[in-house]
Amino acid sequence: MKTISRLPQELIAALAARFNDRFSISPGICEHHGTDESSLSPAPPDGVVFAQSTEEVSAAVTLCHTYRVPVIAYGTGTSLEGHLHAVKGGVCIDLSGMNQVLAVRPEDLDASVQPGVTRKALNAALHGSGLFFPIDPGADASIGGMAATRASGTNAVRYGTMRESVLAMTVVLADGRIIKTGSRAKKSAAGYDLTRLFVGAEGTLGIITELTVRLHPLPEAITCAVCAFPTIAAAVDSVIQTIQLGVPVARIELLDTLSVTAINRYSKTTLREAPTLFFELHGSPAGVAEQTRVVQDIAAEHGGMDFAWADRPEERSRLWQARHDAYYACLGLQPGARSLTTDVCVPISRLAECIAASLDDLAQTGLTAPLLGHVGDGNFHMLLLVNPGDPAAMGQAQAYAQRLAERAIAMDGTCTGEHGIGLGKRKYMVMEHGAAALTAMRAIKQALDPHNLMNPGKILPD
Amino acid sequence: MKTISRLPQELIAALAARFNDRFSISPGICEHHGTDESSLSPAPPDGVVFAQSTEEVSAAVTLCHTYRVPVIAYGTGTSLEGHLHAVKGGVCIDLSGMNQVLAVRPEDLDASVQPGVTRKALNAALHGSGLFFPIDPGADASIGGMAATRASGTNAVRYGTMRESVLAMTVVLADGRIIKTGSRAKKSAAGYDLTRLFVGAEGTLGIITELTVRLHPLPEAITCAVCAFPTIAAAVDSVIQTIQLGVPVARIELLDTLSVTAINRYSKTTLREAPTLFFELHGSPAGVAEQTRVVQDIAAEHGGMDFAWADRPEERSRLWQARHDAYYACLGLQPGARSLTTDVCVPISRLAECIAASLDDLAQTGLTAPLLGHVGDGNFHMLLLVNPGDPAAMGQAQAYAQRLAERAIAMDGTCTGEHGIGLGKRKYMVMEHGAAALTAMRAIKQALDPHNLMNPGKILPD
Repeated sequence: MKTISRLPQELIAALAARFNDRFSISPGICEHHGTDESSLSPAPPDGVVFAQSTEEVSAAVTLCHTYRVPVIAYGTGTSLEGHLHAVKGGVCIDLSGMNQVLAVRPEDLDASVQPGVTRKALNAALHGSGLFFPIDPGADASIGGMAATRASGTNAVRYGTMRESVLAMTVVLADGRIIKTGSRAKKSAAGYDLTRLFVGAEGTLGIITELTVRLHPLPEAITCAVCAFPTIAAAVDSVIQTIQLGVPVARIELLDTLSVTAINRYSKTTLREAPTLFFELHGSPAGVAEQTRVVQDIAAEHGGMDFAWADRPEERSRLWQARHDAYYACLGLQPGARSLTTDVCVPISRLAECIAASLDDLAQTGLTAPLLGHVGDGNFHMLLLVNPGDPAAMGQAQAYAQRLAERAIAMDGTCTGEHGIGLGKRKYMVMEHGAAALTAMRAIKQALDPHNLMNPGKILPD
Repeated sequence: MKTISRLPQELIAALAARFNDRFSISPGICEHHGTDESSLSPAPPDGVVFAQSTEEVSAAVTLCHTYRVPVIAYGTGTSLEGHLHAVKGGVCIDLSGMNQVLAVRPEDLDASVQPGVTRKALNAALHGSGLFFPIDPGADASIGGMAATRASGTNAVRYGTMRESVLAMTVVLADGRIIKTGSRAKKSAAGYDLTRLFVGAEGTLGIITELTVRLHPLPEAITCAVCAFPTIAAAVDSVIQTIQLGVPVARIELLDTLSVTAINRYSKTTLREAPTLFFELHGSPAGVAEQTRVVQDIAAEHGGMDFAWADRPEERSRLWQARHDAYYACLGLQPGARSLTTDVCVPISRLAECIAASLDDLAQTGLTAPLLGHVGDGNFHMLLLVNPGDPAAMGQAQAYAQRLAERAIAMDGTCTGEHGIGLGKRKYMVMEHGAAALTAMRAIKQALDPHNLMNPGKILPD
């Protein structure tokens, strides 16, 4: 079969000359690189470069810039908002081969990595160092992709998000120039914060080719707990009180009854099918014991039941594996369904109200949507289960997701706590930020990428 | 006396019409607004507007934009790098009258304030709430100014800097448009991080007119300690080990022998005149007791002497007041002297080496320069005491400061941990960031302020 590509022949020739068999226009490879874990239809790029160094990324970007061809970075393909969909065609730069941990510096509690290193790979490399990298979005995503989408996850309530975790980066700009966005100093007041500008920019301002990230000492003691509550409100109120008292919980996760049911089926657990909190506490043995008492008292005040502690590593792993598998467990509730995943985040004072209104709204629609949340941060997901062959249900789910996003924004929250804007949430950008702030974002995009070549069609509405 | 101003007469008329007696071109008022706490000569603006609302700031900026006249924001005048010097003339907007705490939300651990609220005023307003605002640069600076310079101080090792503390801001852009840079959600992945872009931009991209900042629960227990060491290296090694073990110290400050001598004289303390660490520990009573044991053991291993604890609030206040007065205490070492204050920050693994090399270098010069440091972050200041009437000494001090900045940058650190670039450190921007990153910063400045009206002459080298 003859392969047809929309790329200019000269660019194809130049990329083939530079990268040999690490450049491909094979439809299978392109298709694979135009698909993520969202429910969006694939949008394959026209070619894929498998890069192995910053200089190679710069060379590929420079060539694409010469021919005014879009460039999209690819890590593990685990994004949830169509971040890697080549909606304007172009060349995908696959960074998964840039998977070296370049340095671990225990004295400075930091590590430098290539962008294709996944969070689990980094933690494996840290084995024996007494340190760990806490950011945990569930998927074993690449650290470059996590930075690009400002990812977070279950540990963010204690350890922050990628915004707080990245100290400095190497970035290839739209015209191929290579910049460093900071030093390894823990703090700096030296000029514009380029690091934070590229974190969360979803590859629309440049491609991250190296990162220095903060590490944390492994806690001396870790304990987990599961506690069921009579109502979601009781669970959320326990969370609010825990945070307000300054208990440094490492994780505090909410699951609604439906999610617990799904997990019991999928992971063969025997949790009580009720609104449930999963906790994890980190610290010294005495500190964890003290946190435990406080958390248990708060839960008891709010009708918490079946408080079960898991101190042994294998029990903890089993619990968190079940939590991380919740996405797949929930998909199993409705065979053949895909999930339209929402990601709102609100001030914690509005969380109970936001969840209650969203569950009321859900009851009106007849849709199935288990709820999971990183509730210490005010962030929760509803997984709207929809059969791809049912356009009416898909329309209903999209309308529901829009009402949910609008509700969160009206509560001074955000339409996305951790997944990013990508394609699908661009329509909320004006509502969330206002027209003037969006104009400022467009001015920055135009300044750094005047030909709109870096992951075009993402973040900013057309 | 007739008042002469370089401002266009039409602008003077328009500002006078809009602001009445809250607009002034009086030389005395202009002179006051062109002076900060640095050793730089004053550079007064040509007029001062005393603004009382975001709309008024927008109105003043719009008028200045129309006449292409520079605009400089003023808070408390406590900057250390000439941030408010009107080096290109223009209108100063004094925000000290915008001093209202707009909301305190204990459930969300946040507060919204006008930019002229000082850190002490915010903490006074929080009295009784069980919360506090931890960022503490020493001076009772305005929170708007602290955000603009990405300030931090003694508590940053535990609570972060203004980078981590600001959730969202209202900003007036160069053409007078008003934007919001974020929501009150604790985390968001919705587009470019405008909040972090304006934090640390030193008023060169816009003027901050409202801020929502994070608060923290007041710790149940607080304890302080002072410990003398045989050498600076022993003190620094104690700090490194404390940080590496994950002890969540709230403050850990280094003073060299000369600083201690200065403090003893100025604050009538009786500290041993040796390299000294000041600690503060926050937590539950049991947690603080546990931290205390660890810190004490580490100090003992490194030859720490005269370990003295201060648990009572008045003892603690006395200790920290002495620390905060160290700047004035050090000036007292050399009557008539001003301080050329340095502010480098390096990875903590390089801290002992950086300090040792800097003290060696100092010994060669014959200059007097006490050393004070937020050493948990790798940040330290040397106060180069110079008589303003001694140009030879000033030249020597400037050359020393340059070698110190270059040394820190070579160690993958920064020329400024918390004071900002302002006027004097622009010359290090290329060395620290590289030409390509600086070009990206210039592109952002050009995009948001095409006529270079917002605090021109700061951050970016001419």
